[in-house]
Amino acid sequence: MAPRSSWLSIPADSHFSLANIPFGIITSRHSQIEKRAAVAIGDHVLDLKAFAADGGFSALPSFQEHVAVFSQPTLNAFAALGQPVHREVRAYLQDIFAADTAHPEILKDNAALQKAALLPKHDTKTHLPMQIGDYTDFFAGINHASNVGTMFRGAANALQPNYTHLPVGYHGRASSVVVSGTPIRRPNGQILADPSAEPKVPVLGPSRRLDIELELGCFLCTGNRMGEPIPIGEAASHIFGFVLMNDWSARDIQTWEYVPLGPFNAKNFGTSISPWIVLADALEPFRAPKLKNETPVLDYLKEEREDTVYDIQLEVDLTTPDGGTTTLSRTSGKYLLWSFAQMIAHHSIGGCPMATGDLLGSGTISGTGKNDLGSLLEMNEGGKKEIMIVGMDVRTFLLDGDTITLRGVCGGEPGALVGFGECSGTILSAPDLP
Amino acid sequence: MAPRSSWLSIPADSHFSLANIPFGIITSRHSQIEKRAAVAIGDHVLDLKAFAADGGFSALPSFQEHVAVFSQPTLNAFAALGQPVHREVRAYLQDIFAADTAHPEILKDNAALQKAALLPKHDTKTHLPMQIGDYTDFFAGINHASNVGTMFRGAANALQPNYTHLPVGYHGRASSVVVSGTPIRRPNGQILADPSAEPKVPVLGPSRRLDIELELGCFLCTGNRMGEPIPIGEAASHIFGFVLMNDWSARDIQTWEYVPLGPFNAKNFGTSISPWIVLADALEPFRAPKLKNETPVLDYLKEEREDTVYDIQLEVDLTTPDGGTTTLSRTSGKYLLWSFAQMIAHHSIGGCPMATGDLLGSGTISGTGKNDLGSLLEMNEGGKKEIMIVGMDVRTFLLDGDTITLRGVCGGEPGALVGFGECSGTILSAPDLP
Ligand SMILES: [Ca+2]
Ligand SMILES: [Ca+2]
Ligand SMILES: [Mg+2]
Ligand SMILES: [Mg+2]
Ligand code: NI
Repeated sequence: MAPRSSWLSIPADSHFSLANIPFGIITSRHSQIEKRAAVAIGDHVLDLKAFAADGGFSALPSFQEHVAVFSQPTLNAFAALGQPVHREVRAYLQDIFAADTAHPEILKDNAALQKAALLPKHDTKTHLPMQIGDYTDFFAGINHASNVGTMFRGAANALQPNYTHLPVGYHGRASSVVVSGTPIRRPNGQILADPSAEPKVPVLGPSRRLDIELELGCFLCTGNRMGEPIPIGEAASHIFGFVLMNDWSARDIQTWEYVPLGPFNAKNFGTSISPWIVLADALEPFRAPKLKNETPVLDYLKEEREDTVYDIQLEVDLTTPDGGTTTLSRTSGKYLLWSFAQMIAHHSIGGCPMATGDLLGSGTISGTGKNDLGSLLEMNEGGKKEIMIVGMDVRTFLLDGDTITLRGVCGGEPGALVGFGECSGTILSAPDLP
Repeated sequence: MAPRSSWLSIPADSHFSLANIPFGIITSRHSQIEKRAAVAIGDHVLDLKAFAADGGFSALPSFQEHVAVFSQPTLNAFAALGQPVHREVRAYLQDIFAADTAHPEILKDNAALQKAALLPKHDTKTHLPMQIGDYTDFFAGINHASNVGTMFRGAANALQPNYTHLPVGYHGRASSVVVSGTPIRRPNGQILADPSAEPKVPVLGPSRRLDIELELGCFLCTGNRMGEPIPIGEAASHIFGFVLMNDWSARDIQTWEYVPLGPFNAKNFGTSISPWIVLADALEPFRAPKLKNETPVLDYLKEEREDTVYDIQLEVDLTTPDGGTTTLSRTSGKYLLWSFAQMIAHHSIGGCPMATGDLLGSGTISGTGKNDLGSLLEMNEGGKKEIMIVGMDVRTFLLDGDTITLRGVCGGEPGALVGFGECSGTILSAPDLP
């Protein structure tokens, strides 16, 4: 079946085809201060505040009372309306942009509204799409967990005994989640100049083992009341949508600090996400089975179907200060042992209240080969091996001026891609020591 | 020096003497919906919204432009004004309530404003005082860390090598911080029915080892920009004030889940705080030296003075469903190895952005004796010993219907106490398993 075509010119290789319609927050050249909601479509964005203000939703009467959500500086109010509303709005906007739209008078044949609301993407700037209440990072990429566990404890003890029984996760730092394009300053922190010396004596200095973690992020649209867990069968209905996530990690800080309470300053200096939230519905055609778990899971984690992750083609690029770009990894979003629905069911099983705008990270996603790894730590085999990059250059960990760009896209049919665009960040040098 | 006296009748044993003036958020019998700011004074609260509306701040011209902060449902806007403003407002309110007030016309001789703004405490209800952005729990109570470490690893390895070099902490769950009086539902979670069996097989069930952690909480009034650490010399100026905190903990869930990423569901089902924020200035007379750290600390953690903790007399009461109350512990807020200023300097050293409303927990506070411990786990020696309570009854961990009440107060002079009031919570039975 040929993809539905649009009256708007959308490049065939765009991540933002008519099949996608991801939501974000923008400012425009015309109004640099006022943040508002938008959807990405091809090389354009539709400013939903301007669209709503001039009758854009007049053919969707059920939504009329809610259009003010698009004048907010985050998508939280829209998200909180719940999946049935997101579904309705996305389908409506798909129709508005379709060549055979039932409502050509709204935008297709309305030059004034096009001028007011349909902006070239390069005239707009994206911002953090949600106000994040709490951010939790899981560890569901079993290949990554196994690779890193092998480095530290040997292959026989690579995974902790709890790993296949529950989605291991920890509370992350919501305040340092930033949108793609935000520079990341190399952290100073306590590191062991000589990790093998006894007694261990840390020094304060810039991290020398600055790494990435290729992850998927999941935003919640609705939550639960404290003390009332979300049943696994309802968990997916609490998902708003997905983003790419780079959980920047300082491995030397992490090694020294993380026992017994987990990673802290090694992770809280910055986490980057892509700006456009791809709705769960848009990913529906790209479901794939989770990785097989040989361990029987408890009932509260049992899903009715196995295809509860997504086959998202993921790539990691490193661009050096010279401008040379190397693709370090090509992998898939399906390499997870646990689905986001399972993470939600587990997170709330003890009654923890979750809320609109909560962000969940999948954990680092790696395949089983050499060219499909989600962290430099795995590519450089624990810091022991140089990674070859273009221009006769090498890296073990990130240098100042390096840019990491994550990309993710589903499907292959030209004109019907459902993608995330990019999640990028450039490393700035550490600040002077205090 | 006799304490300054008030024209208002304040019980001599009140935690809320004229020397205190803690801030909170209330609703009143008259307006049950509209949250507003207040200060506690003796058996009354001063509704600051009503006070401001009728000229209460007319003799403090510098604050006139800011009075709208007291109509907010949280104290964040007031906190964000910074310590010099808090100091000015507290001193002003102390004068307003003083017997020799310079401004008797404002409240002392103004029956109408007293009627409108000075409410009997029992006619008001307290609420969570701040919107908490991020919550971080530290582990600075070295006696607790050492007691628990000894149980799990023996006395020789009780403390991890990093413990005396940095204030160990982890990111907690902001969404489940609740105000004193909120019931706490016992969590269900994965626990090992037989922890010594191999392979380890968890079951889902109600926690059987539900515990408390006696802590101090610290709210920030101002933060830092991402990438720009807060120097130790400035860290204390970012503190708004302090509360009592009970970090409810499910020990059996914790044991199974916490390696390698730290506590998660064992802690995220609820954390209780006392409702009245005692400003840093009010605690100034009660400074005490931190516990001695034999390890030299790095420069970014060095403080100019040693008396950077507070001698707060802390108590833990257990009240059974029968109503019998046992004081389980009497200890002091001074039993910390790290000050909150050091925690702030460490938290931000890598550039993590902190913000108005962030909550930091001290970690469990224990003394060195048998009757000054901050957790049941220490009192029951790892679950092996029954704790004697009134009515010929015993406890190891908490039973449904038990109420824990924390109290904290500084000073001993009647009429000049600076206290926190209470932080209490009653355990409800676990919900049915899903
Ligand atoms: Ca991660
Ligand atoms: Ca704690
Ligand atoms: Mg991170
Ligand atoms: Mg807690
Ligand atoms: Ni001012």
